[in-house]
Amino acid sequence: MHQLTIHTKGAASEVLIGESYRNLHRYLPADRQAVVITDANVRRHYGDIARGLPVIEIGVGESHKTLQTLEYIYEQLLRLNIDRNAFAVAVGGGLVCDAAGFAASTYMRGIPFGFVSTTLLSQVDASTGGKNGVNFGGYKNMIGVFSQPRFVICDPTMLQTLPAGEFASGFAETVKAAVIRSPALFDYLERHAEQALARQPDVLLHVIAEAVKIKAQVVERDEREQGERRILNFGHTFGHAVEVLAGVSHGEAVAVGMMIAARWSAGECGLPSGDVQRLERLLTRLQLPVTTDALPGKVFLKATGDKKRDGEAIHLVLLRRIGETEIRRTPVNEIKEKLTRYFYPYH
Amino acid sequence: MHQLTIHTKGAASEVLIGESYRNLHRYLPADRQAVVITDANVRRHYGDIARGLPVIEIGVGESHKTLQTLEYIYEQLLRLNIDRNAFAVAVGGGLVCDAAGFAASTYMRGIPFGFVSTTLLSQVDASTGGKNGVNFGGYKNMIGVFSQPRFVICDPTMLQTLPAGEFASGFAETVKAAVIRSPALFDYLERHAEQALARQPDVLLHVIAEAVKIKAQVVERDEREQGERRILNFGHTFGHAVEVLAGVSHGEAVAVGMMIAARWSAGECGLPSGDVQRLERLLTRLQLPVTTDALPGKVFLKATGDKKRDGEAIHLVLLRRIGETEIRRTPVNEIKEKLTRYFYPYH
Repeated sequence: MHQLTIHTKGAASEVLIGESYRNLHRYLPADRQAVVITDANVRRHYGDIARGLPVIEIGVGESHKTLQTLEYIYEQLLRLNIDRNAFAVAVGGGLVCDAAGFAASTYMRGIPFGFVSTTLLSQVDASTGGKNGVNFGGYKNMIGVFSQPRFVICDPTMLQTLPAGEFASGFAETVKAAVIRSPALFDYLERHAEQALARQPDVLLHVIAEAVKIKAQVVERDEREQGERRILNFGHTFGHAVEVLAGVSHGEAVAVGMMIAARWSAGECGLPSGDVQRLERLLTRLQLPVTTDALPGKVFLKATGDKKRDGEAIHLVLLRRIGETEIRRTPVNEIKEKLTRYFYPYH
Repeated sequence: MHQLTIHTKGAASEVLIGESYRNLHRYLPADRQAVVITDANVRRHYGDIARGLPVIEIGVGESHKTLQTLEYIYEQLLRLNIDRNAFAVAVGGGLVCDAAGFAASTYMRGIPFGFVSTTLLSQVDASTGGKNGVNFGGYKNMIGVFSQPRFVICDPTMLQTLPAGEFASGFAETVKAAVIRSPALFDYLERHAEQALARQPDVLLHVIAEAVKIKAQVVERDEREQGERRILNFGHTFGHAVEVLAGVSHGEAVAVGMMIAARWSAGECGLPSGDVQRLERLLTRLQLPVTTDALPGKVFLKATGDKKRDGEAIHLVLLRRIGETEIRRTPVNEIKEKLTRYFYPYH
């Protein structure tokens, strides 16, 4: 097992990569009542995790990442007489962890919580870093807080039950971590793409641990995304817009967003075109899309209404080379002008 | 003007007692778009405060301290294109500041905010300390976070327009501050009760400044209410229940709750009965109620379902004498047994 501690202002979050979900009870505080928050899918596969703890079950899928789901969780917490001395465990993917983490952070002004991450996407990205929240008004993660889980259990054996599309989708954030910070992880992914897709346990364990390490380093230095943490948004500025407009998964949208950002980087800050091709090949081997049906004009409008807008400019995360980023504050009208140019593949 | 800085983990909150609301613009960050959140009542009296800033107007009264009001604020923030680099100013009483402070703390994972407190209750209590939130499921402040405003402007001239009942109601938290921590402020209130009620500016200024000082000291030492901050709940354990059950104002309910707690203190931890009488006389002179029509059995049920419940016991805040508290963890069944005894006046 790889154990990693993420230290942020006044909090420490333990990420346990390779720990079995069956050991969840070892991490629950003995002096607190615990409650499990999960969804129907996860409960079908891993219902045994609760071991007699009360369970709150929320709807499956991104369409349930809403204020209404939060309200449902609050109602159930009240119904179960959960008080401020309780502990909440979210068992699920990004949606469950994001919504349950926010519910726990605001119920009675905050009860402590932990995660058991059941998807590749949440193991490599969503469940570490302390961002939580729900979508609102057509925008992703519009309402939320920064608040660290006490622990995150990433059990790669849980990934064996993931549908293929969802599994592949999780690689997008892994590739992102590599491309912004680690040429070594990028190489490793190039050498092991097929084994990773085939869910070989040792390959998964290595990939997850490396991706989480990168994220942890960045988050420790800038929990609240006032500077460096922005690099984690590589591929997300346009990716979020594609996700909403094209109705594809987060990972698929981020893959498309990374390709746009990579071409932008080649045109504007010297990323070698060979690196753009390496990225495209790797994403394709990982069964991720590199283009979208969404129209660039609509992506522009959605992206500039996103919370990453900074007055009249956006901080675009670009690449100088694989492993090295540059954050460029780019006026909205420059984005409008250039997005079409970088939106589609050259070839 | 009295200026006080409340330092908490990673944040500093400036409380400006005696500052004119007309100087609000001096405290707004120059590089951020500002938005005002207020209610219709306040806007009628102090609409000029916005000076061209966009205004979000929420409903008047405790019945609007809901998730629905939060949702309305989020919608309006989106409609106004408020981004994460904006600054929110709540202008109003406790309800407006609590709801707007929570909305600001969760919109795009938090934008900074300040308060202009327009009621005595919010000037002496609600707007300092960093608690915010909304009611839920019949319980007060069930959903919220700890999050400090950048500044709080307490302009006593704004209190001249308050309805008499609401004004008197604000004295309850002032008396609470005195009775838990400051025999000097308690004496001062006894000597100046009528002048305070008549809203004499120098008396108000002194009383507000002293009450805020007490609160600031307690909050600095224990922002998240894990220990000492609990003393600020003096009168609130039963007060909150009375507020919901009898439909009286927060201040009126706290006055009743303090009398119950004072009699409990006399019976259980040596508060001289003369001090119980002093408290009762002072509250009465300040036109606050000392009894309620709510039934003790119902108050018990409501109070033990409150978020202050700690497993099977409640931390009761009691008095050894005026200015000196004792927190006593009291089993729920002991509370059930004794509440009727201490619920009604002896005489």
